[in-house]
Amino acid sequence: MFSSSALLNEERLHLLMAEAEFDAIVATAPENVTYTSGFWALPQWIRRGPQAYVIWPASGKDEVEIITSTATLDLVADQRIWVNRVRRYGTFNVDGAALDAMDSVSRRLIDLQKAPVHDDALTALTAGLMDTGLGRARIGIDEIGLMPGQFEALQERLPNAELLPAAGLFRAVRAVKTDEEIARLARIAEITERSIEAALAVALEGASELELARAFHAQTVQDDAFPVLGCIGFGERSALMNVQPSGRKLTRGDVIRFDVGGRYRHYRADIARIATFGEPNREVRQYHRALLAGVESAYELIKPGVRVADVFQATVETVRREGISHYRRNHVGHGIGIDGYDAPNLTATSDEVFEAGMVLCVETPYYELGRWGLQVEDMVVVRPDGVETLMTSDGDLFMVTP
Amino acid sequence: MFSSSALLNEERLHLLMAEAEFDAIVATAPENVTYTSGFWALPQWIRRGPQAYVIWPASGKDEVEIITSTATLDLVADQRIWVNRVRRYGTFNVDGAALDAMDSVSRRLIDLQKAPVHDDALTALTAGLMDTGLGRARIGIDEIGLMPGQFEALQERLPNAELLPAAGLFRAVRAVKTDEEIARLARIAEITERSIEAALAVALEGASELELARAFHAQTVQDDAFPVLGCIGFGERSALMNVQPSGRKLTRGDVIRFDVGGRYRHYRADIARIATFGEPNREVRQYHRALLAGVESAYELIKPGVRVADVFQATVETVRREGISHYRRNHVGHGIGIDGYDAPNLTATSDEVFEAGMVLCVETPYYELGRWGLQVEDMVVVRPDGVETLMTSDGDLFMVTP
Repeated sequence: MFSSSALLNEERLHLLMAEAEFDAIVATAPENVTYTSGFWALPQWIRRGPQAYVIWPASGKDEVEIITSTATLDLVADQRIWVNRVRRYGTFNVDGAALDAMDSVSRRLIDLQKAPVHDDALTALTAGLMDTGLGRARIGIDEIGLMPGQFEALQERLPNAELLPAAGLFRAVRAVKTDEEIARLARIAEITERSIEAALAVALEGASELELARAFHAQTVQDDAFPVLGCIGFGERSALMNVQPSGRKLTRGDVIRFDVGGRYRHYRADIARIATFGEPNREVRQYHRALLAGVESAYELIKPGVRVADVFQATVETVRREGISHYRRNHVGHGIGIDGYDAPNLTATSDEVFEAGMVLCVETPYYELGRWGLQVEDMVVVRPDGVETLMTSDGDLFMVTP
Repeated sequence: MFSSSALLNEERLHLLMAEAEFDAIVATAPENVTYTSGFWALPQWIRRGPQAYVIWPASGKDEVEIITSTATLDLVADQRIWVNRVRRYGTFNVDGAALDAMDSVSRRLIDLQKAPVHDDALTALTAGLMDTGLGRARIGIDEIGLMPGQFEALQERLPNAELLPAAGLFRAVRAVKTDEEIARLARIAEITERSIEAALAVALEGASELELARAFHAQTVQDDAFPVLGCIGFGERSALMNVQPSGRKLTRGDVIRFDVGGRYRHYRADIARIATFGEPNREVRQYHRALLAGVESAYELIKPGVRVADVFQATVETVRREGISHYRRNHVGHGIGIDGYDAPNLTATSDEVFEAGMVLCVETPYYELGRWGLQVEDMVVVRPDGVETLMTSDGDLFMVTP
């Protein structure tokens, strides 16, 4: 177990907990459990239903506690987790007693299995909160990971506690990244760009969208990341905003749009690039240049303290001025982290300001049905003096020679 | 749009709706939305929060309706969906008017964008239910896909309707598969077995768990499936039930345990196989034979009408009799489909019986900490006269020669 909370922005968590006057918060959604503890509980990541929690009291880090099923204690034993207290629920049969020459992970699992067992997740959570002296506390509960009725059931079991929804607080904490988070985001951005290159390497006349998608995802898994987003479309299909790869074959003059990104050590990428198969026509070139100018104008403005809404406005206006006079968007980007849509949302109505340490996807997509879709989407970090890109390519059109 | 409900077991749905006296049901979880309509709504599959629904009235299929965000209408236009009515909410900017020589998907999307737009998901759902004459109806709501508070908010907007949770009904319907579902499950089982072979092809002295995992997932994506479950462990790590691939290197005598499976056209696999690097020792061979005998005893018994609890009992007893006298399990398998854990659960306390068309993962894992984990897990279909396997290998130990 590690003492440093590598992913969690602990200072910001305590600041926002103090503002909300929370005596404790409870993480329930998979993203927030991993974010606050380092613990990745497989079952809750691949299905809805399985429960794992982290109780984080304002009183101090020593009392932070993971609550998870007995069936997942091996993951607690094997992972780099910065929480020492673990409470379990449910039964699961594992054999084997401690041997003389046993590996440390197995030994740790044997120890974890010695803890008393609770009947179910909610009973364990109730006991965890009571044992930490939180029976009469004001507690922020991440409501997103609970199953319907569980919030109310928990309130019934803790009649003297004041439970309040706190998913918004977790999202606000996660908005400003730690160095370890930025390193992982940089890595998955890099993997995603390499995967685009791998896809373009098979972009020959007659290749299908599916063939490019295979090459894309193969590179992603080769780099130990997991495929998540894989929108790859040719020609008229590039204008479909969520285009899923089909048998459509590549022909000369096609635009190829990528809106893609995997997951690396739980962290997400979301990047868009455009290639043309052969020389782009004048309109594609001009529109793409306008979209790129929009993103670049955002980079010139973004600094800690600058209003998100102002950057939205400037970005859209730049695209209009530079060549797409009818350009309209609901947003020009969003935060990214352990969730694909972290705060802030880059909209006209945002009341947020940029802060150092935010990681953003800045994007200016343009979809023209029946013709083509164009899009630039980069990942950047907000630094004290402006943005630092996580990209190795600059967002220009790629040209693939037929 | 297609008229056949390829995935949905429509007859069973109507039977269970009649039993529950529901006038309509509403799918909200991604699995149930895709299952009832064929519509795969990307945002709700990769994150919690984005909403898409299917309203299915008992009165007839013509009134079935998809409710989704404007930003996902391209997926409606591009997919094989057997629902004709689509209601949308929220704004999303797409340019382009119908052109003379426009492709059919773009044309369909333009048509879909002509529908009136509702402010948000719940407003659209309320309008959908009211417009179908369900304002005073008894409605089963799949509660799992809703965000906290939405169930209650919907009840407030429909004060004369009786809303009841129905996630259990969806699970019960999904338990008996259609031919198309079985075909997809067979395909992902096959892909998963090929991926195990691909991993074993790189199982050389000194190869790491991560290297095998890369080869495994690369084959999965090569076959157009998505990685989901990838537990691959060597030696003492094979005893960790959820083992995630690490740098642990392969050495002679190691057990290699795979508990793995991807997703193909939304359908899941969950398969376990054991290999040894070099000759297995006597105990591994004997224990594995006992576990395999357990699974085989289940196959001899499973038929429509047979009690699940009886098969659980027989399976555990067989493993004990055949060589692991202390064998204990909470379950010896589960259903599989669009969810990795469909009904039934093969437990001692189940009150279910097998039915023709169920697809099952039958498994007898055994974990001995510090030494090795062994496991057989197959995918099989229940047919009128017994089980039909979806596997190409028979569950025997694979031996990799160093």
